[in-house]
Amino acid sequence: MAGSAMSEAARVPLGMLAVFASAKLVRELFERMKQPGIVGEILAGVLIGPHVLGWIQPGDVLSALSELGVMFLLFRIGLEVKPSELLRLGPTALTVASGGVGLSMIFGVLIALAWGQTMLGALFIGAAIVATSVAISAEVLASRGLLEARASRTILASAVVDDILGLIVLALVSSYARGQMNWMELTLTAALAIGFTLFVAIWGHHAARRMVPRMEANLQLADAQFTLAMTVLFGLSVLAVYAGVAAIIGAFLGGVALSETVGERVHTMTNGVSELLVPFFLAGIGMSFDPAVFSNGGTILLAMVLLVAAIAAKLLGCGAGALRLGKRDALRVGVGMAPRGEVGMVVAQIGRGMGVMTDSVFAIVVFLSVATTLVSPPMIRVAFRGAREAEPQARADEIERIG
Amino acid sequence: MAGSAMSEAARVPLGMLAVFASAKLVRELFERMKQPGIVGEILAGVLIGPHVLGWIQPGDVLSALSELGVMFLLFRIGLEVKPSELLRLGPTALTVASGGVGLSMIFGVLIALAWGQTMLGALFIGAAIVATSVAISAEVLASRGLLEARASRTILASAVVDDILGLIVLALVSSYARGQMNWMELTLTAALAIGFTLFVAIWGHHAARRMVPRMEANLQLADAQFTLAMTVLFGLSVLAVYAGVAAIIGAFLGGVALSETVGERVHTMTNGVSELLVPFFLAGIGMSFDPAVFSNGGTILLAMVLLVAAIAAKLLGCGAGALRLGKRDALRVGVGMAPRGEVGMVVAQIGRGMGVMTDSVFAIVVFLSVATTLVSPPMIRVAFRGAREAEPQARADEIERIG
Repeated sequence: MAGSAMSEAARVPLGMLAVFASAKLVRELFERMKQPGIVGEILAGVLIGPHVLGWIQPGDVLSALSELGVMFLLFRIGLEVKPSELLRLGPTALTVASGGVGLSMIFGVLIALAWGQTMLGALFIGAAIVATSVAISAEVLASRGLLEARASRTILASAVVDDILGLIVLALVSSYARGQMNWMELTLTAALAIGFTLFVAIWGHHAARRMVPRMEANLQLADAQFTLAMTVLFGLSVLAVYAGVAAIIGAFLGGVALSETVGERVHTMTNGVSELLVPFFLAGIGMSFDPAVFSNGGTILLAMVLLVAAIAAKLLGCGAGALRLGKRDALRVGVGMAPRGEVGMVVAQIGRGMGVMTDSVFAIVVFLSVATTLVSPPMIRVAFRGAREAEPQARADEIERIG
Repeated sequence: MAGSAMSEAARVPLGMLAVFASAKLVRELFERMKQPGIVGEILAGVLIGPHVLGWIQPGDVLSALSELGVMFLLFRIGLEVKPSELLRLGPTALTVASGGVGLSMIFGVLIALAWGQTMLGALFIGAAIVATSVAISAEVLASRGLLEARASRTILASAVVDDILGLIVLALVSSYARGQMNWMELTLTAALAIGFTLFVAIWGHHAARRMVPRMEANLQLADAQFTLAMTVLFGLSVLAVYAGVAAIIGAFLGGVALSETVGERVHTMTNGVSELLVPFFLAGIGMSFDPAVFSNGGTILLAMVLLVAAIAAKLLGCGAGALRLGKRDALRVGVGMAPRGEVGMVVAQIGRGMGVMTDSVFAIVVFLSVATTLVSPPMIRVAFRGAREAEPQARADEIERIG
């Protein structure tokens, strides 16, 4: 085979090997040092990414695998959550998410104004730090067998509400930036997102319980249940995007809807896909980290102040919203809601596109999503200390399922 | 969210939904009509692809998913094959593969010369139809629970040898095209490919049996066995490419090496990935079909003559090589070796790059890979009629494993 044809033929398996194996290797090293494995996988991405070793250049294929990875992560988590529980947690989730979103916005705007930004620029910086990225917390909690804990359930439910609030904040800020507030459009946007989420959360599992067994019985396909599950996963992810929320919210709700219907085999098959693809999501976060953010003192200072404020906002805001669960669980919910992610980057991209956000501010937003993601797992571990002992039955179930 | 950001965010889940769901849907329709499901999935690709409905445009992401799909398909098949059996079948595989490759080359060159091609052009056409693509036959046999049959094992073993012979033919023809035969380089190429394959086939399972349990016991990682399996899969696929054979041969040999080591959970997790990704491989074949090949009478005639010759060459050549298994199994092996695939397209691309192959001949090679792939499954079904009754124990094992 000609040399170029050979390197072309090796591209896909070589890329898979480099990302997958280095993520798992660094994860293993971290776990041996009793550090969170997820931090190891993200750092593996920093290491092999374009700014350090340069083994891997981000591109369409990697970002698609990373998107699929986070969709499968949330879908798999959703499969472990009962819909009734999600709905029961609705009121708490509403106060938790509102507290965190509100305080993040206030902190972000005040710091940005103090730093000399225009009101519009400040609003975009605020909007870029409102949205929690639940995937990271979910991974930490799942890998430590803590998904059954009450605080974990509250985090998952709040993240769904948080995503809708983030969408509304972005719609408000964009509308303000265009110079007129189109209330009709804003109301429609919010109604569509809320309607979609409530509809799937309330009716999804009823529909699944009725239709999946019936369709499965009628299908000739091997592994019909898995095929139906994948169709639900991708279908709801698409609908979620068109309803204005993130694809992963659709994936999560799809998992919840199917949690009482699909069998153990579908769980294991889904775990296979998720074990394969989640490293691409985690390493992908690391690859997006650009050390250029540390090029001058002012930027470093702003980045650090915003980092502390972003974490404090969720700790205090979400914690206050969860106080009815007791102080310990309120703290757990607060740290679990701290990681930020791709939603912030989308906001920042729109802000940059509108010319109200400079490149260095954009780099700070990317830095914040990597940094909150890196510092949260150790905080989650500390905050959840004792959660296992508190719920021995749930833990035993988890062990049984994992084993 | 802005309209363009929305369609961007929906791109990955929408593409996944379109390809996966339509492939499975058409497969279901075909299975209801008692037709091979695999043909349905390929036709779904023709339907949604650029030349008919135009829903999906082939691109980097789709072709990466398709490559991964066929790697997982072969890996999964390899997991069902015992290494001892593969080696025991070596001598038969050698005669089967040589017969098929030799006769394909002869038929291809003669037809091309008769059609007025130069000797060099004729050699490339011959080289483009020598290599069997075993993925299609493997899928049909696996989905019908026939992998345990002796003829099926022979097909798999022969496909490995066939791939090496295809590489050597390509090296010879390319060398001839460059005007000088570099025998030293040719010998090295062949030795590397044969050495790699024999080394993995003979030593792979010993290494796996020693190292996998030891590493698994020492790893902190959850699902350590699956992580090791994926690393072997990607690692051997890369090495296979650098040794000059196809990535899927590495994937297959990786599966064989691990077949006696990994547990049921890794099988199920691998099935999850393969169920998800194989439709992308199959629909991807369909998408590459371009009806332009039927634009003029001469091209249609050549395409049809080559199609018949390509199938006859494997039927007669491989069948003759497998005669020691009895006539019925010889026929089964012959039809099982008939599908051509991506190796032929690689040869054709090189030939086109060298200017010895016109665009219309290139289109014919692509057509041959789609057409042989479409006509083989029904022939395999007919040829394997009775294979279940002949090996009731093997069939019972298969049912147990699937159920």
